[in-house]
Amino acid sequence: MVDTEAFIPEAKAEIREAVGDEEAIIALSGGVDSSVAAALTHEAIGDHLTAVYVDTGLMRKGETESIRETFSFMDGLRVVDARDRFLDALAGVTDPEEKRHVIGEQFIREFEREAREANARYLVQGTIYPDRIESEGNIKSHHNVGGLPDAVDFDGIVEPVRDLYKDEVREVARALDLQSVVSERMPFPGPGLAVRVVGEVTREKVAVAREACHVVEEETADHDPWQAFAAVIGKATGVKGDNRVHGWVVSVRSVESRDGMTARAQQLDWETLQRIQSRITGTLDNVSRVVYDVTHKPPATIEYE
Amino acid sequence: MVDTEAFIPEAKAEIREAVGDEEAIIALSGGVDSSVAAALTHEAIGDHLTAVYVDTGLMRKGETESIRETFSFMDGLRVVDARDRFLDALAGVTDPEEKRHVIGEQFIREFEREAREANARYLVQGTIYPDRIESEGNIKSHHNVGGLPDAVDFDGIVEPVRDLYKDEVREVARALDLQSVVSERMPFPGPGLAVRVVGEVTREKVAVAREACHVVEEETADHDPWQAFAAVIGKATGVKGDNRVHGWVVSVRSVESRDGMTARAQQLDWETLQRIQSRITGTLDNVSRVVYDVTHKPPATIEYE
Repeated sequence: MVDTEAFIPEAKAEIREAVGDEEAIIALSGGVDSSVAAALTHEAIGDHLTAVYVDTGLMRKGETESIRETFSFMDGLRVVDARDRFLDALAGVTDPEEKRHVIGEQFIREFEREAREANARYLVQGTIYPDRIESEGNIKSHHNVGGLPDAVDFDGIVEPVRDLYKDEVREVARALDLQSVVSERMPFPGPGLAVRVVGEVTREKVAVAREACHVVEEETADHDPWQAFAAVIGKATGVKGDNRVHGWVVSVRSVESRDGMTARAQQLDWETLQRIQSRITGTLDNVSRVVYDVTHKPPATIEYE
Repeated sequence: MVDTEAFIPEAKAEIREAVGDEEAIIALSGGVDSSVAAALTHEAIGDHLTAVYVDTGLMRKGETESIRETFSFMDGLRVVDARDRFLDALAGVTDPEEKRHVIGEQFIREFEREAREANARYLVQGTIYPDRIESEGNIKSHHNVGGLPDAVDFDGIVEPVRDLYKDEVREVARALDLQSVVSERMPFPGPGLAVRVVGEVTREKVAVAREACHVVEEETADHDPWQAFAAVIGKATGVKGDNRVHGWVVSVRSVESRDGMTARAQQLDWETLQRIQSRITGTLDNVSRVVYDVTHKPPATIEYE
């Protein structure tokens, strides 16, 4: 475990030394990693940091409001409403890698504009240790929004939590007094709900994934999963009244893990599973089926794409 | 419950009266309904019955061998190897209704040829009571191979178990001393594994569904489900060694029901679910994920298409 009392001042000193009197920018994803990197950097260089939160339309329910509230202490917070731009760019794209690519490109476009406006010379990133290991093994491509360094001509990149594991980042979040909504937050992938709808990203599927994720987060909270969410994975037949209908299949995933590199499917009790399925099919008319993912990582990944 | 001692002689008399000295033909699907209809008809009219089993390539593991064995007492048994013809006809077809249509058409072609060769004037069908109700509500189209009456010019149709529920048909099967593999057999849809692979029917997906169904049938046997099977419902990422792979998602379904018209997802214990997932992902290299369907009917159907 990290010694936060030693780590925080060292990280701040390192940031100050790297950035000097220049402007820095960070992309806030809503996840704990970038939140901690932003808070550390804000403590180190104050208003020289611009924190950009891009609302891609692929965020969790209530995410944008939560970001505004959590980071209300930062003058440099910029919330960009890019929902239509992302969803329009994704229309017709079905290949998972192509989806990530489109999202990455659009993100760069949004971020570049903000970086130019902020006159930022340094890029701060919330990369953590497992990200570095996994991107070497090529297991995740752009799970965290990547590719930025090449696109924008920064003088340098600062990664204040690059040597930490996820639970260590959480400890730092608590030590920094970040709201518990951040420090206890489950991991959320960079491309957001786009990787929680298998195949083409449509407004309908994203809306289903968002609401279903919300139900799963609420209903599994007492089981303290490392990560719990729902994904729209396909269509199957259902029955409404006397009629046969075609509805979405929602897969529920709840896993235990230390660092996300391996994970165990969580043994949820039948009552919880039934409450989840009945809330999801009850709230969302276009969902006909809820399944529970019982596969560990490996051989499955945690997310679906 | 049906009084089998009264039912069997009545049914036989009715069949004899309907068919007279003509030839009759029945399509054996491997399911209990058509098996009982065939056995009753064979007892009624003996070698005047031709029982055609078409191996569509969409059958359960070991089905064809089992049919040969179970009906070895019938001289009129015809086993038709039509695997390549069905799978070739299904190439590129993704719409569920279109799949059923292609299967129905191909089946008619195979069956017509056999009917002509047998000089059959009467068609025997294993229609049961819930089939009649559900086809009125249009919930299932061709779940049982239908459409035959129009295509072949028979003098009449005989449906000896048309007023029975599934569990009554099983009772009759036991009274007729049909092998327990038939009387205890779970329902199996007419289009076979084609409706247990969502989307296009390929040899690869059918092979996965067949093996996964076999695992699920074995592992759930002690839980006495009304129906238990596996379906290939899509693709998702997995990880093998250090590499990210794309593999099939297999959904496991095990339900309790009296008649199939409504059903409850069965509460399987975690150990059973884990044994199923580890056998499936362990045996089938191209499967990355196993999920368990926790939805009742309604709002889901039992099958996926």
